Amino acid sequence: MSQWIYFFDLCGTAVFALSGALAAGKHRMDPFGVIVLASVTAIGGGSIRDALLGTTPVFWITNHNYIIVILATVLACLVLVRKPHKLPQMTLPVADAFGLALFTVIGAEKALLLGHSGMIAVVMGLITGVGGGIIRDLLCRQVPMVLRTEIYATASIIGGICYTLSLLSGMDSMTSMFLAMLSTLIIRLSAIRWHLSLPAFDLKTKRH
Amino acid sequence: MSQWIYFFDLCGTAVFALSGALAAGKHRMDPFGVIVLASVTAIGGGSIRDALLGTTPVFWITNHNYIIVILATVLACLVLVRKPHKLPQMTLPVADAFGLALFTVIGAEKALLLGHSGMIAVVMGLITGVGGGIIRDLLCRQVPMVLRTEIYATASIIGGICYTLSLLSGMDSMTSMFLAMLSTLIIRLSAIRWHLSLPAFDLKTKRH
Amino acid sequence: MSQWIYFFDLCGTAVFALSGALAAGKHRMDPFGVIVLASVTAIGGGSIRDALLGTTPVFWITNHNYIIVILATVLACLVLVRKPHKLPQMTLPVADAFGLALFTVIGAEKALLLGHSGMIAVVMGLITGVGGGIIRDLLCRQVPMVLRTEIYATASIIGGICYTLSLLSGMDSMTSMFLAMLSTLIIRLSAIRWHLSLPAFDLKTKRH
Repeated sequence: MSQWIYFFDLCGTAVFALSGALAAGKHRMDPFGVIVLASVTAIGGGSIRDALLGTTPVFWITNHNYIIVILATVLACLVLVRKPHKLPQMTLPVADAFGLALFTVIGAEKALLLGHSGMIAVVMGLITGVGGGIIRDLLCRQVPMVLRTEIYATASIIGGICYTLSLLSGMDSMTSMFLAMLSTLIIRLSAIRWHLSLPAFDLKTKRH
Repeated sequence: MSQWIYFFDLCGTAVFALSGALAAGKHRMDPFGVIVLASVTAIGGGSIRDALLGTTPVFWITNHNYIIVILATVLACLVLVRKPHKLPQMTLPVADAFGLALFTVIGAEKALLLGHSGMIAVVMGLITGVGGGIIRDLLCRQVPMVLRTEIYATASIIGGICYTLSLLSGMDSMTSMFLAMLSTLIIRLSAIRWHLSLPAFDLKTKRH
Repeated sequence: MSQWIYFFDLCGTAVFALSGALAAGKHRMDPFGVIVLASVTAIGGGSIRDALLGTTPVFWITNHNYIIVILATVLACLVLVRKPHKLPQMTLPVADAFGLALFTVIGAEKALLLGHSGMIAVVMGLITGVGGGIIRDLLCRQVPMVLRTEIYATASIIGGICYTLSLLSGMDSMTSMFLAMLSTLIIRLSAIRWHLSLPAFDLKTKRH
């Protein structure tokens, strides 16, 4: 079972590295800049989680496979993705959604394994899921996705709650994981597809 | 006595959560986005402080009351603050000033309790006081308050020095705290009220 | 030998503090704001490195000399640098290049001392070298240097690889250090001088 978590973790690393590399390509960065942006996107959230939890050295220092996955993803991206107009417009948001779903579960799982409460598990899932993307967007001077009215943090929080509740209700770890990932993914992809959004908290000065 | 510190800490958490929620409202974020921004503003500075000091897991992981205070503040804010034009223009800066004063003392106190020097106490007060606000402003793509010529970091540093010196001169902890908070608050509120600023270090290319 | 590392570390701290102070001057910040920006630039990268490695409290908490060097640099900068038009245009990038070279080696050295692999050493050199500058640029709302096509992260990565390979090939620590610093410095200064850049990974939508 824990092998599956590890496999999902590496998959999430790859898709977030891809999302970072694609963002780098939109800003015309050089290959090493692409590596930097892909890396902070892929391991930024987990690093913040580990630093806050105190499980240092953080995960990618003790296990080189994360960096190797990132380097391989960037290399593949640099070689294969050279025709921008052939790249579907939705590639980046969809890759990001998969990463969000995978990392939310990984983060919540880690907090629970360390004996923390369900509430902290949800928060750690959120930090792992959205942390890397926030750093990527900050570095690219984009409005962080989490700031927009699109359902983003929401998808991660609901996924985390779903995972914690499933475990509490006696489901086995594997089913809980798939359920949580699926719910995050469905919510986020629906939001992308139909431009769904929750009602905004709006304090903007009205023009009248 | 330490109960007072704890009470102040929760108060500071509430006012900074409010300042984060109000900033979120100005950017038309959805409710979960509001929670995220309120949280990083309220516990961002303290989290950086704890990660640097190595007192991990950071404070809000081992004590759920901080997250509960943030959620309650956000909920109250979402329900009560719906008429932007009825909200005084100065609400955000003033809430921020109170948070700055409270967190400066909390941060300095924590460093001293761990046996660090007065200089480190002042720095930790500053990090706790301005850290959350800097992350909030970065995420909202605002120029961080600390970057502007208004007296901001200055108020925190003077408050921290005031606290450390008061303790060293033999005052009891409670008096030192109130003195430090009061000085930070007076300096910051005066700066807001009368647009005070220290002479800027100006290297801008002159037009002549 | 380790005294030399310490000396280089303080030099790197001074030049990065200078680069932060100069950036602050371009944004017309007040003296305490200058201290804050100089500090995060000088010790930001190393703090992230230590937090990730788990060697907390981070280096500048247990050794006050770093903060003293920063304060002295800022004071000197505030007193001496008052004529912007007399300041050569390249001062900031060149100071930054020296800091990059010094901190890359310091970071890699620290990782190796802790028993981590050469790959982690290169990454830690990169984080130490570019971390502070990225925070500085984020706070100043500049496009981080690392994002531009100029050779920046590249210089640090090559310096780190050069250091690790030199040590592995049996060179003594001192020679490896100088070699690594020199290679980083030459690459970065050449890039500044002749506007060199690697071919960009370009996914920008073509206008055609």
